[in-house]
Amino acid sequence: MDNRPIGVFDSGLGGLTAVRALDALLPYEDIVYFGDTARVPYGTRSREIILKYLRQDVAFLGSFGVKLLVVACGTASTAGLSALDGAYEFPLLGVVEPAVRAAAEASRNRKVGLIATPAAVASGAYEAALKARAPDIQVTAAACPLLVPLVENGRARRGDVVAETVCREYLRPLQDAGVDTLILGCTHYPLLSGVFRDIMGAHVLLIDAGEAVARAAAAHLRESAALSADTARGVRRYFVSDSPPGFAATAALLLGRPLDGPVEKADVESEKR
Amino acid sequence: MDNRPIGVFDSGLGGLTAVRALDALLPYEDIVYFGDTARVPYGTRSREIILKYLRQDVAFLGSFGVKLLVVACGTASTAGLSALDGAYEFPLLGVVEPAVRAAAEASRNRKVGLIATPAAVASGAYEAALKARAPDIQVTAAACPLLVPLVENGRARRGDVVAETVCREYLRPLQDAGVDTLILGCTHYPLLSGVFRDIMGAHVLLIDAGEAVARAAAAHLRESAALSADTARGVRRYFVSDSPPGFAATAALLLGRPLDGPVEKADVESEKR
Repeated sequence: MDNRPIGVFDSGLGGLTAVRALDALLPYEDIVYFGDTARVPYGTRSREIILKYLRQDVAFLGSFGVKLLVVACGTASTAGLSALDGAYEFPLLGVVEPAVRAAAEASRNRKVGLIATPAAVASGAYEAALKARAPDIQVTAAACPLLVPLVENGRARRGDVVAETVCREYLRPLQDAGVDTLILGCTHYPLLSGVFRDIMGAHVLLIDAGEAVARAAAAHLRESAALSADTARGVRRYFVSDSPPGFAATAALLLGRPLDGPVEKADVESEKR
Repeated sequence: MDNRPIGVFDSGLGGLTAVRALDALLPYEDIVYFGDTARVPYGTRSREIILKYLRQDVAFLGSFGVKLLVVACGTASTAGLSALDGAYEFPLLGVVEPAVRAAAEASRNRKVGLIATPAAVASGAYEAALKARAPDIQVTAAACPLLVPLVENGRARRGDVVAETVCREYLRPLQDAGVDTLILGCTHYPLLSGVFRDIMGAHVLLIDAGEAVARAAAAHLRESAALSADTARGVRRYFVSDSPPGFAATAALLLGRPLDGPVEKADVESEKR
């Protein structure tokens, strides 16, 4: 039993889709969320800058004495986790392995599509993990630089002509490749699921990286006997580095419910490891 | 005569359109450019964060002993200049006044359109400046959160269906209002001029804020007898806080020519005033 909180990190608000999944799987756990909204998006930045920011972000969440840190950010998961591994007293769980495992188990025709940020695709991390786990799978990847700005600006609904136009363009090579499984390699993307489904068709399975990492987090805590002993719903704290207008509305959209705790401001630039 | 360099700041690469205009107007001046590419975009952030970043940015450029600082960033110009005014030994020139002056002079039907980032529109700075200068002008403003991501990702050309779809949507209320003059309130937007012209028609005059501030800078230096005494082409230095992939190509696009100096990396977070 371990009553310390779980830390959840994302570059912005996308990681709230992972909190939503944790809500269902681990209702008794305390969660501290941090979204780096003052520096979002990460996915169009260099690996060097992403790692620099991630170190500050992890140090901030580490200051809450977390027992596990879920990196619910596709970009940070692909850029940084191996470089940071072992540097902290708590394990870091990224989205790549859980998403890849789910895709490898689900695909019947062994053709898997990946959509992610430019930095995540350029890292090759998803492809490498798929190759290691299931060498028979053929991956088709598309870098989608505009999807995070679209979601963070509340433009993810079916019928939004901009979202639909952009997604149709990004997904075309994956349709041409005939994938039957699509990894949403960024935790912002589940908000666009309706649009993706309309384009890809109902026969294509969407793998939600945030949901996959939440399941991996639950399994990890169970296996290491580190679940909370509490039997009341866990406390949720939300930190952001900026509070742009429309923040609460977008957060509620991603969380699937109104925010259940105050949103506090964090200055992570000054955090030292 | 004053041989010190001119500083030019932008949140990203958009300010290079102002450098392009300075090239033509003031070829003998030395220029130090800084683009905060590790934290771009500014236009969807809060005023508090924009001011915090701007102070660090100005301190960085100030360290080169500039004689004048051109804030070639619409968002920073609307959020911050009055708060920073007088705090430095060099004057800060933003884009709002020069752009508004050009629009007030140009409009025949006294209906002016403004497109800018959400933060710039929300500040009301352009409207206030127009009202002060030309109370008879009716302004129609549109916040355009996706245009900076589009330009920074190299999607600004005529024929790009995403750029065209997004722009058509943003510009519709301005078309409906019958504006004859359109202020491009963000220095990224001139790259989309072709798209804007196709949508608005050739009878609508586009006011380029970067070009307007370059003209104001030239006038200021002339009036204060602070032009460079050099007669050889000035030295240009370019600093960015991140070097994302495709950087040089996008920079050349905005500059209208290949980069003529090395691109150096700046760590402005640690700059103190």
